[in-house]
Amino acid sequence: MIKVCSCQFEVEAGRPSDNLVKMLSFVKEAKGNNADIIIFPEMSIPGYFIGDTWDSSAFLHECEECGQELVAAATDIVIIFGNIAIDWKKKNRDGRCRKYNALFMAQNGHIVAPMDSVYPFAIKTLHPNYREFDDSRYFYSTAMLATELHTETANLIKPFTVTINDQKLKLGCILCEDGWSDDYPISPLDILCANNNLDAIINISASPYTLGKNNKRHRVFSQHAKKNNIPVFYVNKIGIQNNGKTVYTFDGSSTVYAVDGSIASYTPAYSEAASYIALNNETTAVQPINSDIETNDISCIYKALSYGISKFLQKIHMKKVVIGISGGIDSAVAAALYCQIIGPENVLLVNMPSIYNSATTKDLSKEMAQNLNCAYAVMPIQEVIDFTINQFENTPIQNFSQNIPEKIKISSFVAENIQARDRSARILAGLAAAIGAGFTCNANKAETTVGYSTLYGDQSGFLAALADLWKYQIYELAEYLNNEIYHKQVIPQAVIDIVPSAELSAEQNVNEGKGDPIKYLYHDYLFRSFVERWDKATPEDILQWYKDGTIEKEIGCADGLINKYFPTANDFINDLERWWNLFSGMAIAKRIQAPPIMAVSRRAYGFDQREAQNGPYYTRRYKKLKQELLSK
Amino acid sequence: MIKVCSCQFEVEAGRPSDNLVKMLSFVKEAKGNNADIIIFPEMSIPGYFIGDTWDSSAFLHECEECGQELVAAATDIVIIFGNIAIDWKKKNRDGRCRKYNALFMAQNGHIVAPMDSVYPFAIKTLHPNYREFDDSRYFYSTAMLATELHTETANLIKPFTVTINDQKLKLGCILCEDGWSDDYPISPLDILCANNNLDAIINISASPYTLGKNNKRHRVFSQHAKKNNIPVFYVNKIGIQNNGKTVYTFDGSSTVYAVDGSIASYTPAYSEAASYIALNNETTAVQPINSDIETNDISCIYKALSYGISKFLQKIHMKKVVIGISGGIDSAVAAALYCQIIGPENVLLVNMPSIYNSATTKDLSKEMAQNLNCAYAVMPIQEVIDFTINQFENTPIQNFSQNIPEKIKISSFVAENIQARDRSARILAGLAAAIGAGFTCNANKAETTVGYSTLYGDQSGFLAALADLWKYQIYELAEYLNNEIYHKQVIPQAVIDIVPSAELSAEQNVNEGKGDPIKYLYHDYLFRSFVERWDKATPEDILQWYKDGTIEKEIGCADGLINKYFPTANDFINDLERWWNLFSGMAIAKRIQAPPIMAVSRRAYGFDQREAQNGPYYTRRYKKLKQELLSK
Repeated sequence: MIKVCSCQFEVEAGRPSDNLVKMLSFVKEAKGNNADIIIFPEMSIPGYFIGDTWDSSAFLHECEECGQELVAAATDIVIIFGNIAIDWKKKNRDGRCRKYNALFMAQNGHIVAPMDSVYPFAIKTLHPNYREFDDSRYFYSTAMLATELHTETANLIKPFTVTINDQKLKLGCILCEDGWSDDYPISPLDILCANNNLDAIINISASPYTLGKNNKRHRVFSQHAKKNNIPVFYVNKIGIQNNGKTVYTFDGSSTVYAVDGSIASYTPAYSEAASYIALNNETTAVQPINSDIETNDISCIYKALSYGISKFLQKIHMKKVVIGISGGIDSAVAAALYCQIIGPENVLLVNMPSIYNSATTKDLSKEMAQNLNCAYAVMPIQEVIDFTINQFENTPIQNFSQNIPEKIKISSFVAENIQARDRSARILAGLAAAIGAGFTCNANKAETTVGYSTLYGDQSGFLAALADLWKYQIYELAEYLNNEIYHKQVIPQAVIDIVPSAELSAEQNVNEGKGDPIKYLYHDYLFRSFVERWDKATPEDILQWYKDGTIEKEIGCADGLINKYFPTANDFINDLERWWNLFSGMAIAKRIQAPPIMAVSRRAYGFDQREAQNGPYYTRRYKKLKQELLSK
Repeated sequence: MIKVCSCQFEVEAGRPSDNLVKMLSFVKEAKGNNADIIIFPEMSIPGYFIGDTWDSSAFLHECEECGQELVAAATDIVIIFGNIAIDWKKKNRDGRCRKYNALFMAQNGHIVAPMDSVYPFAIKTLHPNYREFDDSRYFYSTAMLATELHTETANLIKPFTVTINDQKLKLGCILCEDGWSDDYPISPLDILCANNNLDAIINISASPYTLGKNNKRHRVFSQHAKKNNIPVFYVNKIGIQNNGKTVYTFDGSSTVYAVDGSIASYTPAYSEAASYIALNNETTAVQPINSDIETNDISCIYKALSYGISKFLQKIHMKKVVIGISGGIDSAVAAALYCQIIGPENVLLVNMPSIYNSATTKDLSKEMAQNLNCAYAVMPIQEVIDFTINQFENTPIQNFSQNIPEKIKISSFVAENIQARDRSARILAGLAAAIGAGFTCNANKAETTVGYSTLYGDQSGFLAALADLWKYQIYELAEYLNNEIYHKQVIPQAVIDIVPSAELSAEQNVNEGKGDPIKYLYHDYLFRSFVERWDKATPEDILQWYKDGTIEKEIGCADGLINKYFPTANDFINDLERWWNLFSGMAIAKRIQAPPIMAVSRRAYGFDQREAQNGPYYTRRYKKLKQELLSK
């Protein structure tokens, strides 16, 4: 019997020596538990999302040396781990030294090479180069190596053989994407299984969490195990990693699949744990396949957010936050979330009323602070707003021109943004700095999509924790926080019921039911079609669906909304163009300067959604369709 | 004789139908001039940097249809152009439809296919996937196709044959990177030349300008022509394209190289022009190789900046700018630059003094406005600063905790940032909105590297036009503007001579010679080594150079500076760690929220410098070195 330890641990991106220390301690523990093999995740020494840190030789040397030290610790145990492998004599396609995303195996203090391999490590064959992934930018793939060696890629994909307790094992070892080969010309896993009589498949991963991914993974890997009649060890890391603009949680959820495709062992999401299981011909299933692991989306979102925010705060050494609380739903959810994560004693809620803020929302803000039992302050902005408008309107402009007026006049729209910036850039940023805290950005994904926010105003903050949630998910999260986390209504029902409004002018009076121009019941879904659909929707697609009467079904909103909101085609088109112009115009400029976003959906803004400020575009087919519809 | 037209035109990224209209008009002109062949740049229909717009089928259809229309216009002329080619039946490796970065040739209203080709177009073989490039993310390469077809890549690289005026021509047509094959396993150009008796090589490009690139290109392509004894037509686009965070100029500089490697024809940088030349066995050289095209760096930088800023303003429909003018060098250069680009009648300079601003700098600000003849206003910030500090210190915090104090106290450091934010977020943003202008970010690359700036303060603006220039380049640009552009000292000598200072506290009094903690003569070069070196320098490298006494040579600063600034190893190390901590810590957070940067160097911040907020890291070798040096 071979005892295998799957080590799901928190990898610190870009900190090889820190990861090494942890790994050595896990190795020690595994030895104490008489494990024969310990498996660490992909890139467990350097981390995975480290940007162009890969371009520094000193960093690469550090990774190599840490790897060597780990190899030396492989006495009385076999260690399998992910690290960068460098061939200093050869070149990558960017002209830099050759780098492989590699899997190493070590025994008796030495590296064990795969069978008949040109290198003493297994190379990741399939390189994701979509969404948030950048593998092809840094790593040389097996396919490129095959070209160089004038051979077939399949010839370079070989198993490891290792003898443990006099038992000879043949292990097919692959890295992350190698197990997700649907869109690639070859399947490394199938190649390994077809040509060798394997004892197990080991997949080491660095796979960020997004909604729904785990269910899909269980389907895919369970199928691999069943089809090839072989146990599959999937070992993923936990922690958070970011690529600047977007922060991803890694949930681990390491799993061993038995030969019948059932789950033999499962390490809970986001927990640092070494799980032990016996490798035998079947690898006993201890659980049936649990396809319910992710049925409740909002509980998964909550788990990802609370873990992600907590780790992000640790990473940037921030212990306290200041939250601008308006009496609306977004800031209320942010407040409840942060209080849960860092404790109410580390949260300061600040209400910043102007003359436009209703007693209703001011009272609700105070009520939130009381319900959460956190610090609270009221800092009115009206005096500085008045001073500013007066300063603008009464400061003489010298040498004015035709284009720069002698007298500045402040419109209502300009005054709205002055208020928003005063709240964030003057009060929240100043207060946060004064108490050694950060201030939060509470924007949701609908606002972020169309830039319904003020740059250097409510658009700012150290982290946009809710910016990957549509408004309907914000409401779901509010209910979830009340019902499942706090078990009482910390977010008052009135906050949930009130019309969403920025309260920046008399036109946005909540007591008169006036609020945002975004009709979330429809626009949440319209906007989602711009960014989250597999084939991103453009005005052309949307107008075609409108014409065909299939739009509600296509975008997923409730039936009957279109006719209710838009009596005529003209109304529909005006609305569509208004938001498309913003989405692909000013909103991009705002997103460029937005804070990092915590990812939960399959397509978060930031590094995953590559955007250019190229202005709104309408295809010729769109223009034709529009003409048709308007001439009816 | 065959008359060839190289059409260097401004491609609008993401606007196929607009580009088509332009191209059709160039085709008409070329026909009128009896051209036999017209060559357009790479991706001349869709544009090149368009982010994930490639993911939308409607957009792809639009590109296809525009391409078909251009093909139909190929009567009495051969048209060569770049476009996306879609194989709707096959998949890309991201699971989306198959896309090729392709070159099309059309004659008699029909597409001309390359010899023995599986597709009726030439495919880009070498895909840059480094720096600002993302080709592998979107396009399927010839190498991948070869794998799919079980053949060698070289077998898929074929010339076009076309008969013009009864003369049969064989043309080797490649795309951009295909001509830069040093780091790749194959050279498409050499393959074409080796196996065929070609009449010419045509390279269509979408090659962004960066400092020094043109000289290198002339060396490379001149060599291609000479070595293969063949004329080379290099056709590049002009205009600007951005990937959100970074804005690149495309300079065109289309060139025809004669068989002896000399330049036969050259289209000036940034000019939209159709150039005509006879294709014969030699392609007559009209100029000798001019390696001097780029000897004066600062004139090239000026050209790129003024073209880039002008185009960027057009793109975002901005006609006027507001510039915070401090009396220092950065804002002075910004003012002189923008006045030159959009005219002083569209520029408003605003001086925003606090009690810390000297009469010296206030007077210099006014002098700048007078010299430039633009609008000018003085908007003091002291009252709002005092109000804010008072508001913070005297607003009661309710339900305060151990971590959130009852009384807020504003430190001098916090007050500095309050001032910076007041200037940008309150005054400049408000004023700009009021007059329908944008306000500029005047940060240079040294400040940007270490985040010596305030978020939502001087870090903000619609564009950071100078953020790819080191401080010494800012000074060079100041001299250049005075001497070569304005031919008078619009930037007063005192602005050039004054000590750089933020003037945010009594500690930064310029009249006492106090200023920035950055010692630009050394730090410009130290910081540059962090980001622009081929092998990016880390503290380990720098400390090794320090120990070896080679640091000044390695980083390129003046001799003798190290001993002058840092009497002891301890001083040197403290300084190094201070800036490294900022560079890889807080400065990343600031860059994530920075405005778009106009690129001029080989390594601008933004999309090219992929960064993660992972905190400063020191290798074990660094720590050992440090210990050694400190124990001496």
